[in-house]
Parts: sequence; C-alpha cells; structure tokens
Amino acid sequence: MAPETPLSAIGEDALVQRLLKTLPEPAKSVVIGPGDDCAVVRLTDGSEQLLKTDVVVENVHFLRTAPPEKIGRKALARAVSDIAAMGGKPQHALITLVLPTDLSVEWVERLYEGMRSVAEPFGVSIVGGETARGQQLIISVALTGLATHGALLRSGGRPGDRLWVTGTLGGSLAGHHFDFTPRVVEASWLAIRFRPTSMMDLSDGLAADLPRLAAASNTAWQVVDDTLPLTNNCTIRQAWNDGEDYELLFSTPPKVEADLLSAWQRVFPRVPLTPIGWLTEPSNSPPKPLGGWDHFSS
Amino acid sequence: MAPETPLSAIGEDALVQRLLKTLPEPAKSVVIGPGDDCAVVRLTDGSEQLLKTDVVVENVHFLRTAPPEKIGRKALARAVSDIAAMGGKPQHALITLVLPTDLSVEWVERLYEGMRSVAEPFGVSIVGGETARGQQLIISVALTGLATHGALLRSGGRPGDRLWVTGTLGGSLAGHHFDFTPRVVEASWLAIRFRPTSMMDLSDGLAADLPRLAAASNTAWQVVDDTLPLTNNCTIRQAWNDGEDYELLFSTPPKVEADLLSAWQRVFPRVPLTPIGWLTEPSNSPPKPLGGWDHFSS
Repeated sequence: MAPETPLSAIGEDALVQRLLKTLPEPAKSVVIGPGDDCAVVRLTDGSEQLLKTDVVVENVHFLRTAPPEKIGRKALARAVSDIAAMGGKPQHALITLVLPTDLSVEWVERLYEGMRSVAEPFGVSIVGGETARGQQLIISVALTGLATHGALLRSGGRPGDRLWVTGTLGGSLAGHHFDFTPRVVEASWLAIRFRPTSMMDLSDGLAADLPRLAAASNTAWQVVDDTLPLTNNCTIRQAWNDGEDYELLFSTPPKVEADLLSAWQRVFPRVPLTPIGWLTEPSNSPPKPLGGWDHFSS
Repeated sequence: MAPETPLSAIGEDALVQRLLKTLPEPAKSVVIGPGDDCAVVRLTDGSEQLLKTDVVVENVHFLRTAPPEKIGRKALARAVSDIAAMGGKPQHALITLVLPTDLSVEWVERLYEGMRSVAEPFGVSIVGGETARGQQLIISVALTGLATHGALLRSGGRPGDRLWVTGTLGGSLAGHHFDFTPRVVEASWLAIRFRPTSMMDLSDGLAADLPRLAAASNTAWQVVDDTLPLTNNCTIRQAWNDGEDYELLFSTPPKVEADLLSAWQRVFPRVPLTPIGWLTEPSNSPPKPLGGWDHFSS
C-alpha cells in the first residue's frame, strides 16, 4: 500500500486540486465550477446564479473572546464579499452553526444579531440553516447571488491589463477583519460601467490571491510596491501578506485608466481606488513573493 | 443582567425559534423561509428553487472509524433526501470540510468518492466548497434543487387526510443510516401523480418528525402502531424512535388511498408504501410519545 500523505504536508489549494479530480462531470447548467470566488450556474431563464459557501472556525478565524456580534457579522460578510467579487448581488443565505454546549442561548442570539447587521443593508434573506453540537464553534454560510450583468471571473485578464485594488491593504488584525464593508455596490457599478476583464476579492492577502488571479487568466503580473495603498501604520510587507482585506482586486484594459479613475472618484469619493501594476505575458513571471495565508500550511 | 440560558437547557427546535426572532423581514423572493425541509425561493422566471444546508459532525452523526466513503455518502445523501422531501430534483452542491490535520489526503479523497456515489446517480453537480482546519471532522453540505411542479410543504395537511410512510422504519444504526437511498424518484412521482397535501422526510424519527408535520399543518394525528412497517428485527418502539430512516412521511386526501396504493405497487414494486394513520382535528391530539432524536437534548 502506498504511504499516506498527511494533510499538514500539502496546502489548501493542492488539496482542493486533488479532490476535484474525484468529481463527476458537471451538468450543463454549471457555467463555472470550483476555482473562482463563487460557482456560477445557469438558471432556467438563462440568468446566472452565484453559489458560495464559506466557513469560519474558532481559534482559526476568530477567538471566542471576541464579541459574538462581530463574529457573526464577519461570517456572513465574508460570503457577501465573494458574491461582490463576481459583480453579483447577494440574495439568500443558509446558516449552519456547530455549537459547543457551554455557550449560552443569548450568546448565539448576539451572533445572529451580527449576521443581521450585514444581511439587512445588503438585502440578504436568511432562509434557513441548521444547528448541531460540537467541540469547536463553527459557522458555515451558504449564500446565493444573482449576477444580472453576467459574472465577472478571475480568468478573463490579458497581458497588458491594468491591475487595481480598492481601499487600503494590510493591518486587518487591528480590527478591519471584523468591520470591513463588502464591496457589493462598487463591484456592481464596475460590472456595469467598466466591465473588468477579471476580478476577485482579497481574502488571503495580495501575495496569495494575485497569483491565483494571474494563473486563472494565464498571465503573469507585475506590481509596483511603492504604489500599494497602505492602511495607516502598515508596511508594504503587511499589505502583501496580512490578508483579510476583503477589497476588490481587478483588471481592466489600460486605455480606460483615466476614465475609470475620474468616474470612480466622483461616485465613490471615500473609497480609494489604486492602480498597482499590470498583468503581463506568462514568460515575464517574477518570483512569487513569500507569504499570504494558507489555511493548512500557515 | 438577566441570567444566561445554557444551550444544553433547550432543544434544537426551541433554539431555532429564538434565533428566527432576530431575523429581518425576508425579501419578496422568499416563498418559504426556515421551518420546512428546505427553504423555497422564487427565481426570476417564476420557478421555485429549493435551498438546503445540512451538517454532520464527528462523534455526533458518525464515528471516524467508519469507512470514509460511507461518511461522505451519508453527508450528501441527507441533503438530497431533504430536496426529495419537497418533491424536488437536486442540482448543485457546495461542500465545506472542517478537517483535523491528522487525517490523510487519501482519506479525504475517499470521503469525496462517497459523495460522488450519491452525486452521480442523482444528477448533483458539486460546484464548489471550502476546506478549513479544525479539531473535529465536520462536513457541511449546501444543496440547491428545483421544484418543477411546485414545492410540497409540511403545512398543507388537513384533518382526515391519510398518513403514509415509504419503506420500513427502525434499526438505522444496523447500517441503514449509511446506505439509505434518498426517495427523489418516488417523491417526484408523488408530486406529479398524487400531489400529497403535506410531505417531509423522516430524519429524526417518526416520534419527533410527525408532530412537526402536524404542527405545521395545524392538525393533530393518530397512528395505528400495529400498521407501522417495521424493519426486520425491529420493535414498534424502534420504529418510532430510532431516527435516520430517511423515508418519506406524507398525507393525502383519504379518497385517493386505493388508487395510490395500486399505482405505487405497479411503479415501485420493491419499495413498501404503508398507510399508518390520519391527520386529525387539533383538539383530538393524543399525548406526544417520548423519544425521537434531538441534537441538543439527547
């Protein structure tokens, strides 16, 4: 018998790649399967539905000492950010809670209040869910969305495209990982007005996520470190590696740069938008920077 | 400050009732929110989509000593059974795995093989998912379905309706909880041919689930114990209480009884169908039998 490979020996991406090989052929309704921010499936009327699941685990993604409202808010906001990353509007959520029995009912109610604080402004209906006992507190969110103008994928970037990020990067642990605003409004506007060639949200950090977008687009990339929009008191290294920024990373043809910047500043004057580099020919690949967050190997 | 209520002091149903109070008003697209086997939402073309999430937790729903193929099969088949319970066809699944790092990659691949063994025959496409580290092995499945002929709810039963169960009840721990066949085909046939007034699947046992169906229909119920279809070597008590039968429980107007029985036996000769009692006027409520499986209080 071949020796077994411990999970700790491979990263999350490599594990997913191995699991995907075991899957049967998808149905014709599947437009985009695993690998992008969301799956995309075709509805019977031809429109595109987005499907996303996201899980947060005690001691991995949060500590139980945090206020339950913030934990609940984060759990749902992460999935909403993934719907935004495809240019979609979030619709219906299912919430699965695995609960240690030493928690109180009131604590779980406060967790739900936190989810409500994201659900309400973004028009998400929590339509169901499940609770089970467990040793560790776990919140798994499944969320559907509608990509009225067609889903924006990671895979449409072309060499020469301008690379952009919204907001600022780095320093998430100072609090931003609990209080970020999913970029639903901005992404939807981008999808209609400028149709980015590729888009994703930054959950694991630019150093981990940008190579994923470039690989999906079959390009390499070049970033000018000095142009990275830094969160106050953060270093360039933190901007690359802290993760949990939940900002949009996207590409556009270079010719729209001036138009996009001026239109953006008019519509979203309080949200920075920064060109940080370019997608490049695959052969020009720079060395991958170290870092970024991998759920198994970090 | 009011004293806090430990989770162990209330059952799963009571917890869910308290959490539901914290939710905002659902969008117009929500046909049925929490409380039935699945949520039902209206798609843009007017058709009804079913949404379900289901979780299995190590040491609660299975032991890790079980073959991983069986654990994976069960995790997905439970959600498929819930789609069947509404008369729907399962479509797209998202799989969330929380994995202790002492598992091997090969073990997780075998878990996925088990999910494939349900996905393939029932036309389910696994379109995405996520993996995270955790102390306990947890599999959370989110599944969409399509109720082409309109979802069959728990709430449409009327006093005088005949109560039916498919298959046999009891003895799930002897193996049936791993190898049951979700009643997708049978439920879909029922939805078209006989339009049950109410339907659900039996996951927690007749003793726990029948009162839920009756409550949703605003009726009471009467069951003739001697008519319960028992699994080999099982007692009537086991048929009520073992749980995890994953059979259909449904009601029809009494006048279709003979037609339904003869049509069923022609189409599904190998699956028993048994009339076990009636829905009754609310005031005739018999005492609730003890037992059934509650995830917190058991």
